[in-house]
Amino acid sequence: MHQTVDVALGINLLHANQAGADHNRSHLDEWGITCLNIMSSPGAGKTVLLERTLATLSRDLAIAVIEGDMTTELDAERLRQYGVPVIAINTGRSCHLDSKMVAGGLHQLEHNHDPSTFDLLLVENVGNLVCPAEFEVGEHAKVALLSVTEGADKPLKYPVMFQEADCLLITKTDLVPYLDVDVEQIAANVRQMNPDATIIPVSAKTGEGLETWFAWVKGQVAAQAVSRASYPVVALQA
Amino acid sequence: MHQTVDVALGINLLHANQAGADHNRSHLDEWGITCLNIMSSPGAGKTVLLERTLATLSRDLAIAVIEGDMTTELDAERLRQYGVPVIAINTGRSCHLDSKMVAGGLHQLEHNHDPSTFDLLLVENVGNLVCPAEFEVGEHAKVALLSVTEGADKPLKYPVMFQEADCLLITKTDLVPYLDVDVEQIAANVRQMNPDATIIPVSAKTGEGLETWFAWVKGQVAAQAVSRASYPVVALQA
Repeated sequence: MHQTVDVALGINLLHANQAGADHNRSHLDEWGITCLNIMSSPGAGKTVLLERTLATLSRDLAIAVIEGDMTTELDAERLRQYGVPVIAINTGRSCHLDSKMVAGGLHQLEHNHDPSTFDLLLVENVGNLVCPAEFEVGEHAKVALLSVTEGADKPLKYPVMFQEADCLLITKTDLVPYLDVDVEQIAANVRQMNPDATIIPVSAKTGEGLETWFAWVKGQVAAQAVSRASYPVVALQA
Repeated sequence: MHQTVDVALGINLLHANQAGADHNRSHLDEWGITCLNIMSSPGAGKTVLLERTLATLSRDLAIAVIEGDMTTELDAERLRQYGVPVIAINTGRSCHLDSKMVAGGLHQLEHNHDPSTFDLLLVENVGNLVCPAEFEVGEHAKVALLSVTEGADKPLKYPVMFQEADCLLITKTDLVPYLDVDVEQIAANVRQMNPDATIIPVSAKTGEGLETWFAWVKGQVAAQAVSRASYPVVALQA
């Protein structure tokens, strides 16, 4: 009984979340914004990746950030130093961002700025390798990070995240010499779960792979622009 | 509306889970088993800690393991090499063990062994720094691991886990020379969330801190034995 309620409610929650995500995506398309949902375990390096990304790509692209954390604005403060709008969402005891929380963030963006002036919205999710993969927020693509310190078996043990990711960054490659880990094995395990994901080994410390990551992000923005030109967005009812 | 249903259901789920946890704990007390719930992000080193723990403590204590993973028996297979019963629970898409899943594990233990011959049950939870902290499974104490690679800010950003933990292991201290991280700062941030937690820096690689950890575990087993002797367990109805 308890289990039946659980499952039925799970499906309803995911269904309602999906409708909200589709609605968010329609607004983003209307404004001409490409949205990336960035996910990983705590401490895999999402925030430092965003720091590097803002430092370089904000020269060419108008970027905004939605920063999800259970508590604190520590990460939001770090990113505000790069001169872009950073909307902090505290999820409280919730282990992931959902489409309703991100809708609140989009309303803030619309209230304080002309949203049509932005090219790219980076959403940094709560650090969790499980739950965020289940809750779409309106993104055009999902990015997952896996640190080399987490071990090569993680794609097999936490399959949903790796099946969902469009781009997988293997982070902290500068630490490989001090670990018993094989980046090729990590990549092979990711491919076993998801043959189509783009896999980019990176190090925020040495800069390895960052140019490839920046090119991937620019490619996503360009692809969405082409897609919107081909299929014009119909004006939305609120 | 959606939120109201959410919150009410959340409370009901946690209430039902707590009743199941209390029931599990009564069985464990009846059998004379001390249970530790071991939690962390993916890749913080739970399984290697259990390997080291089984290698040393299984000389003095009769130990069983419940191994929670979304999929695969990779970790369970690693631990079975130490000659102790390892019950694998695959949680599917669920991001944590709950008391019902662990009850199923206890039934397996009872079916295949005389449970009263065990001293210690180690429960390795799903790798997740958020959700497992909310769901008690019947443990006598909670152990959280935080790897030095995850960064000193994590106790502030993921407070529930650190507030709940009775013992906090700061793992992979052998990597400190290669990182911009301060173990003292991690410990200070943990204390800010939880002044009473026992904090032990450890390295499974160099062995640092492992003797202190083993002594803490033995202390838990001894304390529970004293507690049971003082307050005898009344036989349970199923």
